[in-house]
Formats: sequence, C-alpha cells, structure tokens
Amino acid sequence: MSNDPISPESLIQKLEWRYATKKFDPTRKIPAAHWEALEKALVLSASSFGLQPWRFVVVQDPALRARLLPHSWNQGQVVDASHFVVLAARRGMDSGDIQALIQRTAEVRGVDLEKLEGYRKMIAGFHQMADTQGWLDAWSARQVYIALGNLLTSAALLGIDTCPLEGIDPARYDTLLGLSGYTTLCAVAVGYRAADDAAASFPKVRFPHARVVEVR
Amino acid sequence: MSNDPISPESLIQKLEWRYATKKFDPTRKIPAAHWEALEKALVLSASSFGLQPWRFVVVQDPALRARLLPHSWNQGQVVDASHFVVLAARRGMDSGDIQALIQRTAEVRGVDLEKLEGYRKMIAGFHQMADTQGWLDAWSARQVYIALGNLLTSAALLGIDTCPLEGIDPARYDTLLGLSGYTTLCAVAVGYRAADDAAASFPKVRFPHARVVEVR
Repeated sequence: MSNDPISPESLIQKLEWRYATKKFDPTRKIPAAHWEALEKALVLSASSFGLQPWRFVVVQDPALRARLLPHSWNQGQVVDASHFVVLAARRGMDSGDIQALIQRTAEVRGVDLEKLEGYRKMIAGFHQMADTQGWLDAWSARQVYIALGNLLTSAALLGIDTCPLEGIDPARYDTLLGLSGYTTLCAVAVGYRAADDAAASFPKVRFPHARVVEVR
Repeated sequence: MSNDPISPESLIQKLEWRYATKKFDPTRKIPAAHWEALEKALVLSASSFGLQPWRFVVVQDPALRARLLPHSWNQGQVVDASHFVVLAARRGMDSGDIQALIQRTAEVRGVDLEKLEGYRKMIAGFHQMADTQGWLDAWSARQVYIALGNLLTSAALLGIDTCPLEGIDPARYDTLLGLSGYTTLCAVAVGYRAADDAAASFPKVRFPHARVVEVR
C-alpha cells in the first residue's frame, strides 16, 4: 500500500466538507474497519511528553445513550449517530502515570529503565511545577483537545461526519459512565449526515484569513 | 477534482508516520501551495459556537526566530524548520467578539442580523457563565488545541513533518510577537525531517489500546 501524501486541494476540500452535523442518519453505521481506524487515530494522538492524559469512552449501548441524552441538552446526535465517543481527561495525574509511561517506553523501545531516568526526572519536574502552580488538570484538558482536533480531521478524511458536543453535563456523564480519576470534557457524535440536515448546506463561517493568521 | 475519502489504512499509515520531529532539514522549504493549505486548515479548525478564539502567528523572519530561540529551551526546531507558527488564544473574550461572529455570520450566510438574535443571546449566555465562573480563558485555550490537533494531522496527510512545542515562555513570546488580547499557548515547527533525525526511527510509544479506549 502506498503512503503517498494527499494533495493540498484534497485536504482543503475535506476540511470544507466537514461541518458540525446537526442531524445524523440513524440507519447508517460506520463500517468496522473505518471505526477501528478512528479509534486508532485517537490512540495515536500527540500529547506533551507523550503522557496521553486521556480516556476515550465509546458508548454503543442505546440504553446508556438514552440516559446521556437529557444531560446533553437533548441533542439528537447523542442517540442518532452511528458512534458516540466521550473524551475524558486525567484528573490529578500523579507519579504513577509518569512511571507507567516510562515503563511502556522501556517495553516498546526495548531500552533499560535506568536509561530513561533522565527523561522520567524531566517529566516529574514538569509535573511538580504544574501541580504546584495549579494548572495540572488544565494541561491535561488541553491535551484531550488535541485528540479532539485529530478525530474531527481524521473522520473528515475518511468521509465520516462528526459533531463535537461541549454542551453536556460533565458531572452527570462521569457518573453515568462510572469514570474515576478521569473527567468528561466533551463528546463527539460520529456517523453520517441525514439527507435532510439543513446545516450541511450552510456556508461555513470563518473570520477573514487576515484576522486570524498573521505572518511575521 | 475528486473528493474521494482516503482509506482507513492510509489514514493510520500517515498518523503512524507522524512523530515529534527533533531535527528538521533546514534546507527544505514547504512549497507555497502546501503551506497555504495548512494556513487554511488552521482557519477551518472547528471551535465551540464557531467563536474561533485564536490567532496564528507565522514567524518567517529569521531574526525574530532567533530571538524566540532562547525562550524555547533552545530547541533547534524553532530556527531550522521551514515554517514556525505560534498558536495564541484570545484572552478576556468580550461581547465584541460575539458581535463580530454574528456580523460575520450574517455576511457569509446572507441573513439579517435580527434573525441571529437568538443565536447571539445563546452565546452571550454561555459567555457570561464562563466569565462569571472563571473559566473563560481556559475554554479559549482548549479551542486552540483543537486547531493544534488539526494542524498536526493535516500536515501528516500532506507528508509534512511537525513538532509541537509547549516548552516555550508564553510571556516572552507575547512580548516579542507584540500580542495584545491574545496569549501564546504553544508553537509548531513545520517542515521536513533531517535525514539523520534519530527520533524518526523510534517506535511510537502508546499505552495499550484497552487502557485508553473503553467500549460501553
């Protein structure tokens, strides 16, 4: 299989095609290979130090989706989309998380733990600073949004629609999903737009290029 | 031009190919059409309510890059990469930002402002809550990380290397870039890996799939 890059035109076409889908076709399901790729894409998301301070909960049980619905401003995407994934951030990351990453690194790269001691100390120093200064959880949350951006773009490349949802009740989600040590930030409905989703034809609203991009 | 989706295998190959490039080839420059597409990709990034609380500063002046270097842990990527973009978040978003979005929406979609009054009020309600509860700037920052995730993935699709940098001094960056009302969060070096970048061959370290993805 070739790994040829796509063209700039193709990338932009796909990003223009993407929009926050308001109405999904409840009868269309994402093929297994495509969904598997999106899960892998999430796992492959970049994070600072590679710490992966996240958990992705794929909610496929219709009863559970129905219970999440009232805590999601009753947005139909929660129950209608082929797949529904909740993005949660690690809360109160501790030395165990760092140790787990170091051990995983030793395992995957076949290096001795002691060779990673400098790396571990560097991360531990960062962690202590973030913890002391009170922005550790905020940092974790930002990393999760890298995964969110990656998921939206990856899905668009595959011709799959998405709707990111921030309008959900994180505390209720945490309870209903039984999350512990992680907290819900947002969710993404993933599937295919309904033929009659009016939002699909709305021109995309973006500020003029020169307002958001500055070249120095 | 066809807008055929890419295959799941192709997506994963490209995300596996991506890594945080430690050493860029300083002689290789991104072709204009490719860089233009990446700027457009940034502009097309999703954000909650479409508020786009960000600014992207592309630093191409070598002298300015050299001045940023000591405030970036002297990471060579800052000066060696073909392109270098700083991602900044809106600080203290106010009613003017909301009004600007509403006006832009009216303009792009050709609708009367009064038809958007309900939408404006909904955003204003959200804004007031975020401001009162003290998480307005944190919210803006998260949105910027959607753009970051989108940029990393978009570049990989185009066969372009990136290195996201959080290890920079935001306050110094703000001063050197003359940012006002926006604050630096992170930067991304964009270009092509050097042939001898050892990091390119390191196996990617990710926690086991089952640790980060849970199906319910």
